[in-house]
Amino acid sequence: MPGAVLIIILLSLFGIGVAFFYMKKVMDIPIDLGLEKEESDKLKAIHGAIAEGAMAFLKQEYKVLAIFMIGFAVVIALLIDDHHTENVSEGIYTAAAFLFGALISIVSGYIGMKVATAGNARTTVSARNNIGDAFRVALNSGAVMGFSLVGLASLGLIVIFLVMSAILPENLPNNVLMEIIAGFGLGGSSIALFARVGGGIFTKAADVGADLVGKVEKGIPEDDPRNPAVIADNVGDNVGDVAGMGADLFGSCAESTCAALVISALAFAGDINGMLYPIMITAVGIPISLLTKVLVNVHTEEQVAPALKRLLMISSALMAVAMYFVTAAMIPDTFIINENEYTSMGVYWCFLSGLISGLAVGLLTEYYTSDQYQPVKDIAKSCETGAATNIIFGLALGYKSTVLPYIAIAISIFVSWQLADMYGIAIASLGMLGTLVIALSIDAYGPVADNAGGIAEMVGLDKEVRRRTDILDSAGNTTAAIGKGFAIGAAILTSLALFGAFLAHSQNLMRELPEFGASYVLVNDITLLDPIVFTSLFLGATLPFLFSAMTMKSVGAAAFDMIEEVRRQFREIPGIMEGQGRPQYGQCVAISTKAALREMIAPGVLIMGTPLVVGFLFGVQAVAGILAGSLVTGGVLAIASSNSGGAWDNAKKYIEAGNLGGKGSEEHKAAVVGDTVGDPLKDTSGPSLNILIKLSAILSLVFAPFFVNYGGILLG
Amino acid sequence: MPGAVLIIILLSLFGIGVAFFYMKKVMDIPIDLGLEKEESDKLKAIHGAIAEGAMAFLKQEYKVLAIFMIGFAVVIALLIDDHHTENVSEGIYTAAAFLFGALISIVSGYIGMKVATAGNARTTVSARNNIGDAFRVALNSGAVMGFSLVGLASLGLIVIFLVMSAILPENLPNNVLMEIIAGFGLGGSSIALFARVGGGIFTKAADVGADLVGKVEKGIPEDDPRNPAVIADNVGDNVGDVAGMGADLFGSCAESTCAALVISALAFAGDINGMLYPIMITAVGIPISLLTKVLVNVHTEEQVAPALKRLLMISSALMAVAMYFVTAAMIPDTFIINENEYTSMGVYWCFLSGLISGLAVGLLTEYYTSDQYQPVKDIAKSCETGAATNIIFGLALGYKSTVLPYIAIAISIFVSWQLADMYGIAIASLGMLGTLVIALSIDAYGPVADNAGGIAEMVGLDKEVRRRTDILDSAGNTTAAIGKGFAIGAAILTSLALFGAFLAHSQNLMRELPEFGASYVLVNDITLLDPIVFTSLFLGATLPFLFSAMTMKSVGAAAFDMIEEVRRQFREIPGIMEGQGRPQYGQCVAISTKAALREMIAPGVLIMGTPLVVGFLFGVQAVAGILAGSLVTGGVLAIASSNSGGAWDNAKKYIEAGNLGGKGSEEHKAAVVGDTVGDPLKDTSGPSLNILIKLSAILSLVFAPFFVNYGGILLG
Repeated sequence: MPGAVLIIILLSLFGIGVAFFYMKKVMDIPIDLGLEKEESDKLKAIHGAIAEGAMAFLKQEYKVLAIFMIGFAVVIALLIDDHHTENVSEGIYTAAAFLFGALISIVSGYIGMKVATAGNARTTVSARNNIGDAFRVALNSGAVMGFSLVGLASLGLIVIFLVMSAILPENLPNNVLMEIIAGFGLGGSSIALFARVGGGIFTKAADVGADLVGKVEKGIPEDDPRNPAVIADNVGDNVGDVAGMGADLFGSCAESTCAALVISALAFAGDINGMLYPIMITAVGIPISLLTKVLVNVHTEEQVAPALKRLLMISSALMAVAMYFVTAAMIPDTFIINENEYTSMGVYWCFLSGLISGLAVGLLTEYYTSDQYQPVKDIAKSCETGAATNIIFGLALGYKSTVLPYIAIAISIFVSWQLADMYGIAIASLGMLGTLVIALSIDAYGPVADNAGGIAEMVGLDKEVRRRTDILDSAGNTTAAIGKGFAIGAAILTSLALFGAFLAHSQNLMRELPEFGASYVLVNDITLLDPIVFTSLFLGATLPFLFSAMTMKSVGAAAFDMIEEVRRQFREIPGIMEGQGRPQYGQCVAISTKAALREMIAPGVLIMGTPLVVGFLFGVQAVAGILAGSLVTGGVLAIASSNSGGAWDNAKKYIEAGNLGGKGSEEHKAAVVGDTVGDPLKDTSGPSLNILIKLSAILSLVFAPFFVNYGGILLG
Repeated sequence: MPGAVLIIILLSLFGIGVAFFYMKKVMDIPIDLGLEKEESDKLKAIHGAIAEGAMAFLKQEYKVLAIFMIGFAVVIALLIDDHHTENVSEGIYTAAAFLFGALISIVSGYIGMKVATAGNARTTVSARNNIGDAFRVALNSGAVMGFSLVGLASLGLIVIFLVMSAILPENLPNNVLMEIIAGFGLGGSSIALFARVGGGIFTKAADVGADLVGKVEKGIPEDDPRNPAVIADNVGDNVGDVAGMGADLFGSCAESTCAALVISALAFAGDINGMLYPIMITAVGIPISLLTKVLVNVHTEEQVAPALKRLLMISSALMAVAMYFVTAAMIPDTFIINENEYTSMGVYWCFLSGLISGLAVGLLTEYYTSDQYQPVKDIAKSCETGAATNIIFGLALGYKSTVLPYIAIAISIFVSWQLADMYGIAIASLGMLGTLVIALSIDAYGPVADNAGGIAEMVGLDKEVRRRTDILDSAGNTTAAIGKGFAIGAAILTSLALFGAFLAHSQNLMRELPEFGASYVLVNDITLLDPIVFTSLFLGATLPFLFSAMTMKSVGAAAFDMIEEVRRQFREIPGIMEGQGRPQYGQCVAISTKAALREMIAPGVLIMGTPLVVGFLFGVQAVAGILAGSLVTGGVLAIASSNSGGAWDNAKKYIEAGNLGGKGSEEHKAAVVGDTVGDPLKDTSGPSLNILIKLSAILSLVFAPFFVNYGGILLG
């Protein structure tokens, strides 16, 4: 077994071990640490309800997932057959890789959710001691997600690589082998569709339902246990930010790796080190992140927010150093892709450009959405002239905020492309994900801290506890904005790399066709001056808009169901407002779950159906146009949606903190309208666009043999 | 003189004659027809204030325009020199064509504004007789704009064609000659920048200022003469919908023609009929439109709305028939572009595809924005749960509404491209503008009817008069939505044709370069797999968003100035609220003018500067990427903005008509927020995007010699 394989396996197992270590650390804390009997009972009941709700959601989701995954695996097995393998079609292997990728993603999400919903109450009780303890519990809970997901991802990738290399015939072209492995990425990405879109709808439906009936109609405070939707709301935080974000980033990681493998399949054929380099990037992040985490500690309240940011900065710096040596060791000094020669140091710069532009995008996101800076203050100020100006200024801010991140990403694209063609883009994407463990830890830390505050409120603990968890929560929100920026940036680079892989692979397949040269244009010429390319680019540009419209309305429909249910409970359960009658929390969770799963069908079909239908009817070039069009506008819309929403959210919080009239003022009412508009944008439609662009790209890559062999029927 | 030249000149002069005929018909009506002395004085004063205000705005605008135009003409003269002409550089000729195009556009706009502000009061007094008379006056006022603009456009085009052909050396390559003529299109388009963007800012600043202080703060009704901004508001209607829309469509017409000329320069070299065909399309529209107008009449109130729609339908049908014969007569049975053979019947189908897809886009716009159909009813219903849901549903509607129009346009693009390459696209664009006279007449009819109602209100005429003008106004609004769809569709096709012309021309110029082949890639290969193309496509996609953000905020800033001024007048002028003190209307017009001209500088610099800077730094391929990126997203954003805004507007009117609680209800308040958000989207940022995509494309075409000879300095 080559050294690189061993190192990756060991690092992956090490990551999983670290995850278990942190899990044990969290679990060892008694859930009712230092509480009186009555408080303890209350806390256990509430904590149990959230944990049960989260598991109930997952269970429902998994049922749907199982049916979908098996069904889609059959489609893969049937449609993909390129006759490179004997007896068994490639589709069968691809379907197996697909199911394996999906399984790994599900396991990662499950672990993350399990620990997040165990860590929340433990953070609450630790906050009674001091802020440092509480911070540690919340971050450790998040770290379980970070280390386990990344460990499982690199383990999964190396396993599928080894297994497929072993069982597939030796004379199989390397690029076909890698294409089969890409099924792994598709599996992970499909789970992300459910987790991101479904999760996004769940969380906002619960949020809106709880707020609108509880806060507005009944006048009870947030996180009040009398509100039947309060548990669903807390479950939603986990579903959206733990499971959703986790699956999204798992997908990016798996997909970028697959793209790199497909593109470099010919360049590094026979050079196992070169081939395994993309997986190694992910694996190296594990020890680096552990080192980073050990270096950063919190003792006072002021240290919380800087600590989170420092985690990102330190792990970025350490990765930059470590990868220099890894790259030099693994990538040959010079290598050939597409007849051009590239160097290992060029590859290192690709990695670095991704890492840096990821940081830049993250920090820009923070600039546009944090109330520390002018943009959000301007939005808050615009509330003085009412809700309409708040909306106009917020939309304008979102639109404007797309330019600088796009420039940062464009520089990374241009540099990487020059230095190592599309392989460079895939490496840049992995570079952006270089701090994945830390980014995930912080992302999952957010809902844990948020839930901890909710639990403190519901149990009726000392106000000091809630104040402390609020500090944790607010620090998490700021860093979560950075994480969102990363996620979008990574999605864009990943999609572009997949786009390149799709074209390279299609081209290779076309070259083998007997009739090639007669009826097929070499797909290297995806020229804008080709009618089919331009027309499909043009139409592809509308896809993100249509998809956003669908998910935004889905949230509305799901929230409507929830509102009805909460109203019904307030009406029918006797003594509920007096705290005597127990609300049926589970009922609300079930409603949100059902609505989320129902409402995600249409956007899901749109994402997965479009490339398949277009490829079948109009062929590879049309798919390329659709992908490029939706990639380009999808990224803009994702950033705009996410930043408008984040800015409205924080403008409202800025006013609530006592500025411009404070809570209850006319300004505040205007700000609340903005916040409500922004909710589905920033938590549902925006993040779901990441999935749109990535999933359609990897789907096209995996189905490239289908398009090449059977597609384009309408263009003859 | 060839027959076609003569026919075009005669038809153009005929169009201008018809315009004068209708102008005389309008002017012959006594402005105070049948009014008592007191009413007559009041009406004359108000009418005079609007007319003066409009002229004051134009005067100010022309001052700025003159400076800008001369300055930019110098830039053109200096930067463009391709050494095809002796002694005098091509830049000088291009600058002359540029100034000529600008002049023609200015004259058209001036005539349109003059008649619109003369027709408004005459419509008011005619409405005292019956609806048929009032309809005729309003439509005749609009028709002056329609016929004069189209007549001047075709006359200007044929004149510049003849003059340049005559004075430029005979051995000048035909495509260089056409490129110089394209300066005409650039001139028209530059005026459109000022008229659309500046006009859009003016009209919304005045509208918001009048509403916010008058209606909301002071509680006085709309169009109340005590409101100092009321005249500015009425002026704004003309500035936006007459001058703005007119210049926009003049630009599209001139630009599409120029694009067709440049592309066909080599195909039809020596064949004067083939060359003049694009100009003939426009000229043929004149008699067809007159025939249409004579065929349609209105006697009862119910006939008003159908009449406007019938005008469009009949002129489309007549154009479809007439152009069959014109095409067969002028285009050779077969001809060669880019080494492919095309047919005259193919060209006819290009025309037809544009005509039909224009209608389709128009009708779809109506479907999404009229309260006759489900989408707007859904938006109105969403107001039941407050302003936030109204905004979310309205945004989603706008996003979703981009898909079908894009499909219609895409079909037209694909068909035309197949049938006649980029020449086909230019012809499709002219086909979409086939009903230009009628479309313009209806567009200009709108503000006349709107103003007529305002004047009736301010003079205090019988309520029946206002009711009748409201019927005219509301019918105009519906058809205006169709016109907006046309304008966007035409802008997209025009830009694409210009894009094609730019690439074709650049390629021709590059072929002549001594070092060609060594350092230049043939620009035929604008492949998505080229880093510089993809990166600039990627960045180009953000331009429309940045531009929208800028114009949206411009409206805010301009409205703010207006609000301050109106508040000041209410505070400082004694007796103003009692109707004793006379408000300083002119002051408000001046403020709105100043703010509009100031606020359009930044977006204007963005539009005109981006292609120049990008071309100079990164060369032709980068410009191509930027153009394609901003074209593709600009169209989506324009449609989304325009339809969201239109839907919010009509949802509010639907509620005001007594549905869902009616005026003053909570639903109505929520609807007002949506309407206010939509105002800058549908009247400023949305329509301005038409200019963004067209102007940057024609600018690139005109500056192609500069990019080819001196550009790309950063890429060596």
